[in-house]
Amino acid sequence: MSRPVAIVGAGQSDYGDFPALTMKDLFAEAYDELVASIDRGYDPADVDAAYVGNLGTGGAQLGLASALCTDYVGLDGIPVERVENACASGGYALVNAVEAVSSGERDVALAAGVEKMRDLSGDRSKYWLGVSGDTEYERLAGMTFAGVYAIMAQRYLAETDADHDHLSMVAVKNHANGAANPHAQFQREIDLETATGAPAVADPLNLYDACPTTDGAACALVVPAEEAAAYTDDPVHVTGYGAASDALALHDRETITSVPAARLAAERAYERAGIGPDDVDVAEVHDCFTIAEVLAYEDLGFAERGRGWELIAEGVTARDGARPVNTSGGLKSKGHPLGATGIGQVVELFEQLRGTAGGRQVEATTGLSHNVGGSGGAATVFVYEVGS
Amino acid sequence: MSRPVAIVGAGQSDYGDFPALTMKDLFAEAYDELVASIDRGYDPADVDAAYVGNLGTGGAQLGLASALCTDYVGLDGIPVERVENACASGGYALVNAVEAVSSGERDVALAAGVEKMRDLSGDRSKYWLGVSGDTEYERLAGMTFAGVYAIMAQRYLAETDADHDHLSMVAVKNHANGAANPHAQFQREIDLETATGAPAVADPLNLYDACPTTDGAACALVVPAEEAAAYTDDPVHVTGYGAASDALALHDRETITSVPAARLAAERAYERAGIGPDDVDVAEVHDCFTIAEVLAYEDLGFAERGRGWELIAEGVTARDGARPVNTSGGLKSKGHPLGATGIGQVVELFEQLRGTAGGRQVEATTGLSHNVGGSGGAATVFVYEVGS
Repeated sequence: MSRPVAIVGAGQSDYGDFPALTMKDLFAEAYDELVASIDRGYDPADVDAAYVGNLGTGGAQLGLASALCTDYVGLDGIPVERVENACASGGYALVNAVEAVSSGERDVALAAGVEKMRDLSGDRSKYWLGVSGDTEYERLAGMTFAGVYAIMAQRYLAETDADHDHLSMVAVKNHANGAANPHAQFQREIDLETATGAPAVADPLNLYDACPTTDGAACALVVPAEEAAAYTDDPVHVTGYGAASDALALHDRETITSVPAARLAAERAYERAGIGPDDVDVAEVHDCFTIAEVLAYEDLGFAERGRGWELIAEGVTARDGARPVNTSGGLKSKGHPLGATGIGQVVELFEQLRGTAGGRQVEATTGLSHNVGGSGGAATVFVYEVGS
Repeated sequence: MSRPVAIVGAGQSDYGDFPALTMKDLFAEAYDELVASIDRGYDPADVDAAYVGNLGTGGAQLGLASALCTDYVGLDGIPVERVENACASGGYALVNAVEAVSSGERDVALAAGVEKMRDLSGDRSKYWLGVSGDTEYERLAGMTFAGVYAIMAQRYLAETDADHDHLSMVAVKNHANGAANPHAQFQREIDLETATGAPAVADPLNLYDACPTTDGAACALVVPAEEAAAYTDDPVHVTGYGAASDALALHDRETITSVPAARLAAERAYERAGIGPDDVDVAEVHDCFTIAEVLAYEDLGFAERGRGWELIAEGVTARDGARPVNTSGGLKSKGHPLGATGIGQVVELFEQLRGTAGGRQVEATTGLSHNVGGSGGAATVFVYEVGS
């Protein structure tokens, strides 16, 4: 990157089902927490660009939802845009913010995400999610979004020694983490029997293999690393990032037991950061379905192809394991407000790396976030570091 | 800008009503014309990021429409994102591409836009457009999008010496230009009587004060200026740009007889380029309604507040005038495929500044494009220069 950048503030709304709150309310809730997280020196007038990840605008404000939100919190006149890459919208918004600051074009950039999913109920909600698959080849053929991941899971279980229990263990782990997260949609533990015995959604995936639909927002403030001291003694440095895309339709992919775009994004992020998978202490990964977390382990290089399930079986990625993953509860338990998710991951890592994660705190100086759009049409990976 | 950037290729699809073409088809048509416009040395494998402006995805592919399009033309694996700021989506996509290259993060970036509006007919289409106004304060109160601009026009006509005939003259001028543009949706001249006598849409605006709904796509290739010679002897330099936002609802604006976000974007663009309004030889401005072109004259500094209408009355902005505006036909006659519009403007200026605009050619070395989202919730302005 042209000049190093750091995150000096981050915040998020509660994640959940909030029929009485608008997109603007949720955005303001996240923004207020961000402001409160900044130790000193924050002046809203210094923010000179904002990038807002969002997929569906709650079905209400189709155009210009980004300016609607930033204007509402008093960030007047700045360049602001909505960034959409389905569930990777937040990650791409952060790419833009990081590049805007690293380029020297902007000095203070807000990366944000917001989603109001629960307004869209019943058939409309299913339609809405389905359209992140390939319309021509998947949706119009009757494929649901869970169905897409079910196909990936079927193949993975056929090709490896994993069985469905390993997928359920992801849900159990993430619910245990979510139980310790006051912002999480589900703050309750579940046991393996509950997870394995849940009603089928799309074979082999059941209800507890799937993340919920969620209302929520998140944001992070990106500044040049050399200016970070004006805001805090504990900045979180963004030392690497990668973004990639791929065919939307599964049949056009090189493989369906991996997410090639995520693999490519990870390679790029590691290369920029000058680190490898073994250097990552803690990660937030995109577990929209349990199978996605297992694939993430492999795509990020935490495990070899076909052996990601061993990490969950052995407890490596549990909060007290060697490399905790989704300490926030992940999409599964913390919730998945589509456009906000990629930024919500930043909020968790910001807290973990600064030691302010409360009951979820792990020991970590290097964090990673992994955000996937649709079933892999787009992906971003970021590396964060603190200390020297 | 950290390093100067240039446009070395640009292309667009025909603009019009194409029920048999998908978003992907339109995107490919524009991309193919872009490739054909590059004199030498283009290798698709060199493109390392793409930004696709789009508002409605034709109602079909809600998520990941950007990757869908780039994958279709063979730009595999690259970071690509959809950028949405209503009708300024294209302009913001170009901001991202310019910043990505100027920062040194990317060496070859594609800025694109695509919109498939004509798939959405009847009530659904009206709903779709209405949602670029403020949902709570305007749409749910029954305001149409034409209604928003009609309010601005009412006030402008009350405060100035302009009358509705001056608005109609904008339509006549832009149709005359569109008649010379083989890509335009309407390739026919109209006379003043036709324009003034058209059926009312929202008083004082009538049918010929309004742009059409349009299917279309456009794209432009951005590279570092120092690399431009590898592609062409005639690059078009992007010497300045500005982007801004504002409240969506008219009542929250500082004024409704100007578009403050466009004014701010213009100031920023002129400052970066180190030029003033008088230096602009040719401009493409956002004439979604005729009143918008008159306001643009003032917001861009081509005329004082309240006197923009004089430019059209005196023929200054006609193709044979001192400062031609909308030589392409503008949104009014060339058409307005929302997300593509901001990039389609680039295509026209690319051709004008390189002397390849055929029957529309004017004499110009400095061009400007002005792209507005909604009724002014977002705006971008770019300055382009050729020669030394």
